[in-house]
Amino acid sequence: LFLPAEIIRKKRDNSALSDQEINSFILGYTKGTVPDYQMSALLMAIFLRGLNAEEAKSLTKTMLNSGVVVNLDKIESFKVDKHSTGGVGDKTSLILAPIVAACGLTVPMISGRGLGHTGGTLDKLESIPGFNTQLSIEIFEKYLEKYSLCFIGQTPEICPADKKIYALRDVTATVECLPLICASIMSKKIAEGIDGLVLDVKFGSGAFMKTKAHAEELALALMQVGIDYGKKVTALLTTMNQPLGRFAGNSLEVEECLAILRGESFLSPTTGRDLYADTRELSLQLSAQMLYISGEYKSFVEAVAAAKNSLANGSAHKKFLEIVEAQSGTIEALPKPKHKIVIESKSSGFVSSFKTEEIGLVGVKIGAGRIKAEDKILPTAGVEFHVKISDLVKAGDPVFTLHGDHLDSLKSVVEQLLSCINLSEEKTKEEGLIWKTLT
Amino acid sequence: LFLPAEIIRKKRDNSALSDQEINSFILGYTKGTVPDYQMSALLMAIFLRGLNAEEAKSLTKTMLNSGVVVNLDKIESFKVDKHSTGGVGDKTSLILAPIVAACGLTVPMISGRGLGHTGGTLDKLESIPGFNTQLSIEIFEKYLEKYSLCFIGQTPEICPADKKIYALRDVTATVECLPLICASIMSKKIAEGIDGLVLDVKFGSGAFMKTKAHAEELALALMQVGIDYGKKVTALLTTMNQPLGRFAGNSLEVEECLAILRGESFLSPTTGRDLYADTRELSLQLSAQMLYISGEYKSFVEAVAAAKNSLANGSAHKKFLEIVEAQSGTIEALPKPKHKIVIESKSSGFVSSFKTEEIGLVGVKIGAGRIKAEDKILPTAGVEFHVKISDLVKAGDPVFTLHGDHLDSLKSVVEQLLSCINLSEEKTKEEGLIWKTLT
Repeated sequence: LFLPAEIIRKKRDNSALSDQEINSFILGYTKGTVPDYQMSALLMAIFLRGLNAEEAKSLTKTMLNSGVVVNLDKIESFKVDKHSTGGVGDKTSLILAPIVAACGLTVPMISGRGLGHTGGTLDKLESIPGFNTQLSIEIFEKYLEKYSLCFIGQTPEICPADKKIYALRDVTATVECLPLICASIMSKKIAEGIDGLVLDVKFGSGAFMKTKAHAEELALALMQVGIDYGKKVTALLTTMNQPLGRFAGNSLEVEECLAILRGESFLSPTTGRDLYADTRELSLQLSAQMLYISGEYKSFVEAVAAAKNSLANGSAHKKFLEIVEAQSGTIEALPKPKHKIVIESKSSGFVSSFKTEEIGLVGVKIGAGRIKAEDKILPTAGVEFHVKISDLVKAGDPVFTLHGDHLDSLKSVVEQLLSCINLSEEKTKEEGLIWKTLT
Repeated sequence: LFLPAEIIRKKRDNSALSDQEINSFILGYTKGTVPDYQMSALLMAIFLRGLNAEEAKSLTKTMLNSGVVVNLDKIESFKVDKHSTGGVGDKTSLILAPIVAACGLTVPMISGRGLGHTGGTLDKLESIPGFNTQLSIEIFEKYLEKYSLCFIGQTPEICPADKKIYALRDVTATVECLPLICASIMSKKIAEGIDGLVLDVKFGSGAFMKTKAHAEELALALMQVGIDYGKKVTALLTTMNQPLGRFAGNSLEVEECLAILRGESFLSPTTGRDLYADTRELSLQLSAQMLYISGEYKSFVEAVAAAKNSLANGSAHKKFLEIVEAQSGTIEALPKPKHKIVIESKSSGFVSSFKTEEIGLVGVKIGAGRIKAEDKILPTAGVEFHVKISDLVKAGDPVFTLHGDHLDSLKSVVEQLLSCINLSEEKTKEEGLIWKTLT
């Protein structure tokens, strides 16, 4: 006999739920026999009581099996994806996916949209006029065979339980819960039909996890699920204490990725620093990890060399243009912002820190992101960063440039954006991009 | 700006909610602008995080003010009610209300129905053919003026927030939560327009609170709310380690109350013990507390004497018959069960304990109670108790008699009921009815 209230009570009282209990409850909710109010009570109980390893496993399995698991067995090459926990200016997917595909692996990439202060791969790609991310599973499989790469959004067939539960978590304050996050991320990734996964788990002022310890905890939990499913998994713990690269904003980030794929640098007029360096370096490191877990490289150094080579010889660039065209995008029509406001520092000092999350929220205010799923994105809106932590800034030096089509909207956030950078008299030590690699 | 999810998050993260936050959330839920799934998430967060004294106060106030508060100012005498946390055979309301009314106070009694193993005053009264508990607030006030006593059920005007929240708690495993219980009980009692309240908080195997410590905690929390509202409150902590009196079952309990109101005793054929003694004693003690908090008695001893006197001189009996008639009941038509099964002990020993909650659930099985609100009650079904803790029982002695109209149904629970009594070689000490009085 399946009594949803008894299952809620059990978790409330800190007992472990059985595989069958989790399965009945989640599938009941997915098909509508368990109402929202019972699911949300269970979610809050899980949030506050946690799930043990076995329960977490059952939850992921149930969510995975609530829908279709993409079968890519007919593709011989190693299938690998990357998942990032999100940040500001985090655009590496658009660079690493073509790098890895150009090296001969297959990258089945099912991405999400931006929410809150973090951006989303789908929004970035959709700033390319015509780019279609709403492809069926059949087309996805076909394109992966043909191009070794395809970027799509969540489809109704994949993890419908996760889709319904995520929407409920969003309105019941049950989002920030490790086992729920873990099941949500990993069920969707495993459903992609991958052999391997590289996790980019971010920590710092612009990350979901503010501390290194929390990020590592999440990384280990995500890895465990992957390992349980027989996947090759590596996790990089990377800094999000400042925005990544030169831009945050959808078409602006595509510009940055294209430039990096073309092999370009961009030297800051303020400091002379290459503002593409961190995006390029993190994309290469993640690409190399994706290549390395395929088992086709004798050493990680060789995998790095292969990644760099596909960037240097233009094959990654070509691969990106190829998939953009295949997915109906017109890269030449990428819109450019109509207006810009250069924001100058009022004082002098070394950049000591950024309020990175708030920078993301400034982006949301001008249309670069969304608070609610139904908010509309303005593709050209965004922020340009001229300086990085440890750089010396003099009063009057440009530190940010706001871009977009609506000047009034840009003007309204100037002061807030300027307050997101902190200067100090002493030079802050530059932080490495990657803190730890977990394999 | 009222954001329900932010209020849930705040409670989830163990922060105190403001009066305004509680008010907006609860009233939003009552009128339907806050959906069930957000209310249930907040209920679970409250269940696991608790509410501080200020929050509990706000919750009670909001629930109280969600509906009508009965105004009995035109009645000069002291208005007093009793609330019991429920048990098996707990029928004191039917005795103490006429005792107190016969002594000149006013008893506005809004009662509930039985749920789970515990009985409800409304079900007992409704076993009297014609008895109408569904009176309007206007009639309730009129009868209180005329008869000093009236028994009604929850009306839609009183505490609609509690009604809606209680229904949700029942299906989301958020019932057993001190501040929620407290607000639910006290908002309804304060809405009755009382000056004073006597609480009968039960502990033991047949009580909602199994331990004395938990019962005392609940009693103190309930008292605090009453005191906050300027009410006179006394709480008795009483045992529910065995069923109270001779019967559990609706018309059977009315029979017991009528007999006690007539001044009768009933000596157990098995042990010679007066099986009405505990019901009578607890009813008198509660009556005396109700009288004493009115301030009209110089001492508690005098209040006890007044209560005993109204029983001895027949005025309480008369008052009960008067209100039954006023509420359209025909006491002469009280149904009698068609069948009975006497259950004999298979072994000998001293009664050491009862599985009192299970006895209540046996009652539910034969129709004396309900599991769901929509379950139908069979008025004559019930259990008769021939022995009490510490009594000596010999093999073959009757220990229970099952009563009811459906012999097969009674037969089906014989073994289960017999398993609810435990015997031991050594005589168990008899427990006092009242453990503590809190004033």
